Amino acid sequence: MKKKINLNDKLKKIAEHWSPKVVAEMNDYQFKLAKIKGEFIWHTHKDTDEAFIIIKGSMKIHFRDREIDLAEGDMYVVPAGVEHKPYSEKECQIMLVEPKGVINTGDKVSDLTASNDLWI
Amino acid sequence: MKKKINLNDKLKKIAEHWSPKVVAEMNDYQFKLAKIKGEFIWHTHKDTDEAFIIIKGSMKIHFRDREIDLAEGDMYVVPAGVEHKPYSEKECQIMLVEPKGVINTGDKVSDLTASNDLWI
Repeated sequence: MKKKINLNDKLKKIAEHWSPKVVAEMNDYQFKLAKIKGEFIWHTHKDTDEAFIIIKGSMKIHFRDREIDLAEGDMYVVPAGVEHKPYSEKECQIMLVEPKGVINTGDKVSDLTASNDLWI
Repeated sequence: MKKKINLNDKLKKIAEHWSPKVVAEMNDYQFKLAKIKGEFIWHTHKDTDEAFIIIKGSMKIHFRDREIDLAEGDMYVVPAGVEHKPYSEKECQIMLVEPKGVINTGDKVSDLTASNDLWI
Protein backbone atom coordinates (compact mmCIF):
# COMPACT_ATOMS: atom_id res chain seq x y z
CA MET A 1 0.00 0.00 0.00
CA LYS A 2 1.06 3.57 -0.58
CA LYS A 3 2.39 5.69 2.24
CA LYS A 4 0.90 8.95 3.37
CA ILE A 5 2.75 12.09 2.41
CA ASN A 6 3.40 15.04 4.69
CA LEU A 7 3.71 18.16 2.57
CA ASN A 8 5.89 20.08 5.05
CA ASP A 9 8.28 17.16 5.49
CA LYS A 10 8.61 16.89 1.72
CA LEU A 11 9.17 20.64 1.37
CA LYS A 12 12.10 20.40 3.79
CA LYS A 13 13.82 18.17 1.23
CA ILE A 14 13.76 20.88 -1.42
CA ALA A 15 16.68 23.28 -1.55
CA GLU A 16 16.70 24.77 -5.07
CA HIS A 17 14.22 27.25 -6.40
CA TRP A 18 12.09 26.60 -9.49
CA SER A 19 12.66 22.86 -9.44
CA PRO A 20 9.34 21.06 -8.88
CA LYS A 21 9.55 17.64 -7.24
CA VAL A 22 6.86 14.98 -7.51
CA VAL A 23 5.34 13.76 -4.23
CA ALA A 24 2.30 11.82 -5.43
CA GLU A 25 0.55 10.49 -8.50
CA MET A 26 -3.17 10.17 -9.11
CA ASN A 27 -4.05 8.37 -12.35
CA ASP A 28 -1.89 10.17 -14.93
CA TYR A 29 -1.63 13.36 -12.88
CA GLN A 30 1.13 14.42 -10.51
CA PHE A 31 1.28 16.51 -7.37
CA LYS A 32 4.51 18.48 -7.27
CA LEU A 33 6.04 20.71 -4.61
CA ALA A 34 8.32 23.62 -5.35
CA LYS A 35 10.05 26.52 -3.68
CA ILE A 36 10.15 29.58 -5.85
CA LYS A 37 11.88 32.92 -5.53
CA GLY A 38 12.48 35.70 -8.02
CA GLU A 39 11.46 35.92 -11.61
CA PHE A 40 10.46 32.92 -13.75
CA ILE A 41 10.11 33.11 -17.54
CA TRP A 42 7.09 33.72 -19.73
CA HIS A 43 5.76 30.39 -20.93
CA THR A 44 2.64 28.52 -21.96
CA HIS A 45 1.38 24.98 -21.43
CA LYS A 46 -0.55 24.64 -24.60
CA ASP A 47 -2.25 21.31 -23.89
CA THR A 48 -3.10 21.50 -20.22
CA ASP A 49 -4.36 23.62 -17.37
CA GLU A 50 -2.00 23.96 -14.40
CA ALA A 51 -3.14 24.28 -10.78
CA PHE A 52 -1.16 26.34 -8.26
CA ILE A 53 -1.84 26.00 -4.51
CA ILE A 54 0.07 28.28 -2.15
CA ILE A 55 1.31 26.44 0.92
CA LYS A 56 3.50 29.15 2.45
CA GLY A 57 4.39 32.70 1.48
CA SER A 58 2.99 34.65 -1.42
CA MET A 59 3.56 34.93 -5.15
CA LYS A 60 2.28 36.62 -8.27
CA ILE A 61 1.30 35.20 -11.61
CA HIS A 62 1.78 37.73 -14.39
CA PHE A 63 -0.38 37.46 -17.48
CA ARG A 64 0.01 39.65 -20.56
CA ASP A 65 -3.02 41.71 -19.56
CA ARG A 66 -2.94 41.61 -15.76
CA GLU A 67 -1.44 39.94 -12.72
CA ILE A 68 -2.83 38.09 -9.74
CA ASP A 69 -1.53 37.97 -6.18
CA LEU A 70 -1.69 34.65 -4.38
CA ALA A 71 -1.13 34.13 -0.65
CA GLU A 72 -1.15 31.11 1.64
CA GLY A 73 -4.32 29.07 1.17
CA ASP A 74 -5.05 30.52 -2.27
CA MET A 75 -5.24 28.47 -5.41
CA TYR A 76 -5.39 29.33 -9.09
CA VAL A 77 -5.79 27.29 -12.24
CA VAL A 78 -3.91 28.73 -15.22
CA PRO A 79 -5.89 27.71 -18.31
CA ALA A 80 -4.20 25.78 -21.12
CA GLY A 81 -2.68 28.05 -23.74
CA VAL A 82 -2.46 31.15 -21.54
CA GLU A 83 0.98 32.74 -21.36
CA HIS A 84 2.06 33.38 -17.78
CA LYS A 85 5.08 34.24 -15.67
CA PRO A 86 5.27 33.29 -12.00
CA TYR A 87 7.14 35.64 -9.67
CA SER A 88 7.87 35.74 -5.98
CA GLU A 89 9.77 38.47 -4.17
CA LYS A 90 10.53 36.22 -1.18
CA GLU A 91 10.64 32.45 -1.13
CA CYS A 92 7.21 30.90 -1.62
CA GLN A 93 6.26 27.25 -1.20
CA ILE A 94 3.72 25.89 -3.63
CA MET A 95 2.00 22.74 -4.82
CA LEU A 96 1.40 22.20 -8.52
CA VAL A 97 -1.08 19.72 -9.94
CA GLU A 98 -0.81 18.81 -13.60
CA PRO A 99 -0.60 15.82 -15.93
CA LYS A 100 2.51 13.67 -15.77
CA GLY A 101 5.11 14.87 -18.24
CA VAL A 102 4.46 18.61 -18.05
CA ILE A 103 7.68 20.63 -18.28
CA ASN A 104 7.96 23.61 -15.92
CA THR A 105 8.91 26.06 -18.63
CA GLY A 106 6.18 24.80 -20.99
CA ASP A 107 6.93 25.76 -24.60
CA LYS A 108 10.28 27.40 -23.71
CA VAL A 109 13.67 25.94 -22.93
CA SER A 110 15.82 28.00 -20.56
CA ASP A 111 18.25 27.70 -17.68
CA LEU A 112 15.14 27.37 -15.55
CA THR A 113 13.90 24.26 -17.36
CA ALA A 114 13.93 21.59 -14.63
CA SER A 115 14.40 17.85 -14.91
CA ASN A 116 11.04 16.18 -14.99
CA ASP A 117 9.58 13.38 -12.89
CA LEU A 118 12.00 13.78 -9.97
CA TRP A 119 10.42 12.32 -6.83
CA ILE A 120 11.16 13.22 -3.24
CA MET B 1 -10.11 35.22 -16.75
CA LYS B 2 -10.65 32.93 -13.83
CA LYS B 3 -10.63 34.21 -10.27
CA LYS B 4 -8.31 33.00 -7.57
CA ILE B 5 -9.81 30.77 -4.92
CA ASN B 6 -9.17 31.02 -1.19
CA LEU B 7 -9.61 27.61 0.36
CA ASN B 8 -10.51 28.88 3.83
CA ASP B 9 -13.10 31.31 2.48
CA LYS B 10 -14.65 28.48 0.49
CA LEU B 11 -14.65 26.16 3.51
CA LYS B 12 -16.64 28.75 5.47
CA LYS B 13 -19.44 28.25 2.95
CA ILE B 14 -19.77 24.58 3.78
CA ALA B 15 -22.13 23.62 6.58
CA GLU B 16 -23.00 19.95 6.03
CA HIS B 17 -20.70 17.02 6.56
CA TRP B 18 -19.82 14.54 3.79
CA SER B 19 -20.97 16.81 1.01
CA PRO B 20 -18.02 17.70 -1.23
CA LYS B 21 -18.27 21.01 -3.09
CA VAL B 22 -16.32 21.86 -6.22
CA VAL B 23 -14.06 24.93 -6.06
CA ALA B 24 -11.96 24.54 -9.20
CA GLU B 25 -11.54 22.53 -12.36
CA MET B 26 -8.31 21.59 -14.12
CA ASN B 27 -8.85 19.86 -17.48
CA ASP B 28 -11.38 17.12 -16.63
CA TYR B 29 -10.42 16.99 -12.95
CA GLN B 30 -12.04 18.78 -10.03
CA PHE B 31 -10.80 20.15 -6.73
CA LYS B 32 -13.46 19.65 -4.06
CA LEU B 33 -13.64 20.79 -0.44
CA ALA B 34 -15.50 18.92 2.26
CA LYS B 35 -16.08 18.91 5.98
CA ILE B 36 -16.34 15.43 7.39
CA LYS B 37 -17.28 14.11 10.81
CA GLY B 38 -18.15 10.61 11.98
CA GLU B 39 -18.31 7.43 10.02
CA PHE B 40 -18.59 7.24 6.23
CA ILE B 41 -19.44 4.03 4.36
CA TRP B 42 -17.22 1.39 2.79
CA HIS B 43 -16.94 2.11 -0.92
CA THR B 44 -14.70 1.81 -3.95
CA HIS B 45 -13.96 4.05 -6.92
CA LYS B 46 -13.24 1.34 -9.42
CA ASP B 47 -12.02 3.53 -12.26
CA THR B 48 -10.00 6.23 -10.54
CA ASP B 49 -7.55 7.08 -7.82
CA GLU B 50 -8.73 9.69 -5.31
CA ALA B 51 -6.46 12.22 -3.60
CA PHE B 52 -7.13 13.41 -0.04
CA ILE B 53 -5.35 16.50 1.33
CA ILE B 54 -5.99 17.43 4.96
CA ILE B 55 -6.47 21.17 5.42
CA LYS B 56 -7.56 21.23 9.07
CA GLY B 57 -8.07 18.57 11.73
CA SER B 58 -7.38 14.90 11.40
CA MET B 59 -9.06 11.82 9.93
CA LYS B 60 -8.57 8.14 9.31
CA ILE B 61 -8.99 6.10 6.19
CA HIS B 62 -9.87 2.50 6.97
CA PHE B 63 -8.90 -0.21 4.53
CA ARG B 64 -9.87 -3.85 4.87
CA ASP B 65 -6.37 -4.74 6.05
CA ARG B 66 -5.23 -1.62 7.90
CA GLU B 67 -5.95 2.03 8.57
CA ILE B 68 -4.02 5.25 8.13
CA ASP B 69 -4.12 8.40 10.24
CA LEU B 70 -3.95 11.70 8.42
CA ALA B 71 -3.39 15.10 10.03
CA GLU B 72 -3.13 18.67 8.76
CA GLY B 73 -0.68 18.90 5.87
CA ASP B 74 -0.87 15.18 5.06
CA MET B 75 -2.06 13.80 1.77
CA TYR B 76 -2.96 10.32 0.58
CA VAL B 77 -3.95 8.87 -2.76
CA VAL B 78 -6.41 5.99 -2.50
CA PRO B 79 -5.73 3.73 -5.50
CA ALA B 80 -8.53 2.86 -7.90
CA GLY B 81 -10.39 -0.26 -6.91
CA VAL B 82 -9.36 -0.23 -3.26
CA GLU B 83 -12.22 -0.39 -0.79
CA HIS B 84 -11.98 2.29 1.87
CA LYS B 85 -13.97 4.02 4.59
CA PRO B 86 -13.12 7.55 5.74
CA TYR B 87 -13.72 8.41 9.38
CA SER B 88 -13.20 11.44 11.55
CA GLU B 89 -13.93 11.68 15.25
CA LYS B 90 -14.05 15.49 15.19
CA GLU B 91 -14.78 17.70 12.22
CA CYS B 92 -12.01 17.58 9.64
CA GLN B 93 -11.62 19.85 6.60
CA ILE B 94 -10.27 18.22 3.47
CA MET B 95 -9.60 18.77 -0.20
CA LEU B 96 -10.32 15.99 -2.69
CA VAL B 97 -8.88 15.85 -6.19
CA GLU B 98 -10.47 13.48 -8.66
CA PRO B 99 -11.93 13.33 -12.16
CA LYS B 100 -15.14 15.22 -12.82
CA GLY B 101 -18.17 13.00 -12.25
CA VAL B 102 -16.85 10.91 -9.36
CA ILE B 103 -19.58 10.14 -6.81
CA ASN B 104 -18.55 10.39 -3.15
CA THR B 105 -19.90 6.96 -2.25
CA GLY B 106 -18.34 5.30 -5.30
CA ASP B 107 -20.02 2.01 -6.11
CA LYS B 108 -22.57 2.37 -3.27
CA VAL B 109 -25.74 4.41 -2.95
CA SER B 110 -26.63 5.51 0.57
CA ASP B 111 -28.02 8.41 2.57
CA LEU B 112 -24.48 9.77 2.35
CA THR B 113 -24.44 9.87 -1.45
CA ALA B 114 -24.06 13.59 -2.21
CA SER B 115 -25.23 15.58 -5.21
CA ASN B 116 -22.42 15.89 -7.67
CA ASP B 117 -20.85 18.91 -9.34
CA LEU B 118 -22.10 21.45 -6.79
CA TRP B 119 -19.87 24.53 -6.89
CA ILE B 120 -19.25 27.02 -4.13
